[in-house]
Amino acid sequence: MSRYWSSIVSLLDPYVPGEQPKVSNLIKLNTNENPYGPAPGVMAALQGGITDALRLYPDPNADALKSVIAEYYQLDTSQVFAGNGSDEVLAHTFQALLKQQQPILFPDITYSFYPVYCGLYQVEYERVALDESFRICLEDYARPNGGIVFPNPNAPTGIGLPITEIQWLLERNNNSVVVVDEAYVDFGGESAAALVSQYPNLLVIQTLSKSRSLAGLRVGFAVGDAALIEALERVKNSFNSYPLGRLAIAGAVAAVEDKKYFEETCTRIITTREKLAERLQALGFEVLPSQANFLFVRHPKRDAAKLSQALREQAIIVRHFKQQRIDQFLRITVGTQEECDCLVDALTNILLS
Amino acid sequence: MSRYWSSIVSLLDPYVPGEQPKVSNLIKLNTNENPYGPAPGVMAALQGGITDALRLYPDPNADALKSVIAEYYQLDTSQVFAGNGSDEVLAHTFQALLKQQQPILFPDITYSFYPVYCGLYQVEYERVALDESFRICLEDYARPNGGIVFPNPNAPTGIGLPITEIQWLLERNNNSVVVVDEAYVDFGGESAAALVSQYPNLLVIQTLSKSRSLAGLRVGFAVGDAALIEALERVKNSFNSYPLGRLAIAGAVAAVEDKKYFEETCTRIITTREKLAERLQALGFEVLPSQANFLFVRHPKRDAAKLSQALREQAIIVRHFKQQRIDQFLRITVGTQEECDCLVDALTNILLS
Repeated sequence: MSRYWSSIVSLLDPYVPGEQPKVSNLIKLNTNENPYGPAPGVMAALQGGITDALRLYPDPNADALKSVIAEYYQLDTSQVFAGNGSDEVLAHTFQALLKQQQPILFPDITYSFYPVYCGLYQVEYERVALDESFRICLEDYARPNGGIVFPNPNAPTGIGLPITEIQWLLERNNNSVVVVDEAYVDFGGESAAALVSQYPNLLVIQTLSKSRSLAGLRVGFAVGDAALIEALERVKNSFNSYPLGRLAIAGAVAAVEDKKYFEETCTRIITTREKLAERLQALGFEVLPSQANFLFVRHPKRDAAKLSQALREQAIIVRHFKQQRIDQFLRITVGTQEECDCLVDALTNILLS
Repeated sequence: MSRYWSSIVSLLDPYVPGEQPKVSNLIKLNTNENPYGPAPGVMAALQGGITDALRLYPDPNADALKSVIAEYYQLDTSQVFAGNGSDEVLAHTFQALLKQQQPILFPDITYSFYPVYCGLYQVEYERVALDESFRICLEDYARPNGGIVFPNPNAPTGIGLPITEIQWLLERNNNSVVVVDEAYVDFGGESAAALVSQYPNLLVIQTLSKSRSLAGLRVGFAVGDAALIEALERVKNSFNSYPLGRLAIAGAVAAVEDKKYFEETCTRIITTREKLAERLQALGFEVLPSQANFLFVRHPKRDAAKLSQALREQAIIVRHFKQQRIDQFLRITVGTQEECDCLVDALTNILLS
């Protein structure tokens, strides 16, 4: 605390991202990164971008990227917004669309950055409880609100909602914006992007950090009605004209264009996830049904924090949240088959000891 | 305007960056980019960064970059903040440090993003007029205020202040933060970074976009007292955990480390600037004394907008601001010697016609 701070600063409760350890030789299953590298075409595009042209500003509108995303989802480029990771896109969304007279709604167990954005922009919110099976019940959101935001699949549970349920909500909620945060949708979920031309209050946010293997490049985007996108552009252009550098744009374009590699790696991760889920169940874990690239699991007889610590001693990092309702769960990223084998072996030994 | 927008959105007056034309074969002297490419070490570092590790999140704290900046300025890493271009660093600064009870002060003729940030964060401000020679008079800022921000050298005038004058102000203004925006300081100005350990209310902001030839990579930073930096970190960590990707960090580290290339290119630009200033004066232009990589010039007999248009017809782009007091000026980026020769030839022909 300092007398030079703006008054809001001491009230902030910043987000704490998963650990990015600086030692190697760890099996890192804590931040839902893709175990496979970016598509070969991405590497080539990045190589091609390392020229003297880096002295020049990038296209402030990232038109090349908006075009391939628009094409991918059969939308107009005016329905696409791009930013420095989906976290930045979410931040602009909270400021541009979710600061309203009434509180916004989001799940009690969800991406823990949402209340942080509310703190930053002084957005009122109410948490809506997941049911006993840790599912989002959209019926509970069909009431007056200043906006609705939820991930699909939800994090850290991994449980997805069918698009029909989202459409059910959109039919009943047209006075406020509904934000569907699809960071993990490509691992078996159903994207609501198909609905954006039909519902002017639907914003769908995605990232290239997970299914496109580009967490290190920082690119996210949103699709929605042109008026929602315009609000995001107005805020973005009042904040930073050029959030995406030349390499980020070039790499992201190539990543969206390479459907084959994308589909192959997503399929491989889904296959590994299903095998891992079975093996963890065989070890006695309760495994929530996941449509994401992670599993959310608890063991009826073992404390989650202690399990996490025991894994760490074997150089395996998973994520444990010290939060009500879920403090006995571990969130485990689906790694390569070999990494998952190591995890199962380690857990087997820990449970035997 | 849409009923789904937050109330602030329709009040915003977004910044309009200089044009980034998509055709080539233009002489682009409109956005103060460096005419020379990034240092060879930057290219090598970027090449080295194109690996499967791009699937992993970057270091959210960009410690490697903070370390080289701290070393460069003989500071502690706790005195360094890094962000996605100095525009993002400025945005966080307005929210974290400049939103106060009293209005902040900045020059009437200055970087036109400042009032935009004020709109975004609802910061009250007063503009302080430059004198008749278009100089910042810091005496005019020694009065009650919520904060002070100015570029040194100022943009778009290019006129610099000696560090002794900044120190004079700091001695008289210790109740609010003084932000010195040094985007152009490396082209002959004096950095106030040397003063940050002495004045707990001084924040110095720099960019790698100009003197480090990396406008396309998006990296900026701030140095100041650890408490000021903490305010920026708190806002940043409530906005986006990872504003800098892996390639941005790697390239920026190499750029700061390569002092020789940096000094050589800056010297070359200064030499070209001085020659260009002489030749423009010989053509009858009034040229403000510049310590930046651009010149701010007006011709007593020719309308600036028309001159700008005539240059564009010859494939040369410069920047013209439709703004009171300066609408008869052109801001001309110092390009290569060859580009400046073309500019002088074109202007010679235009003035003869």
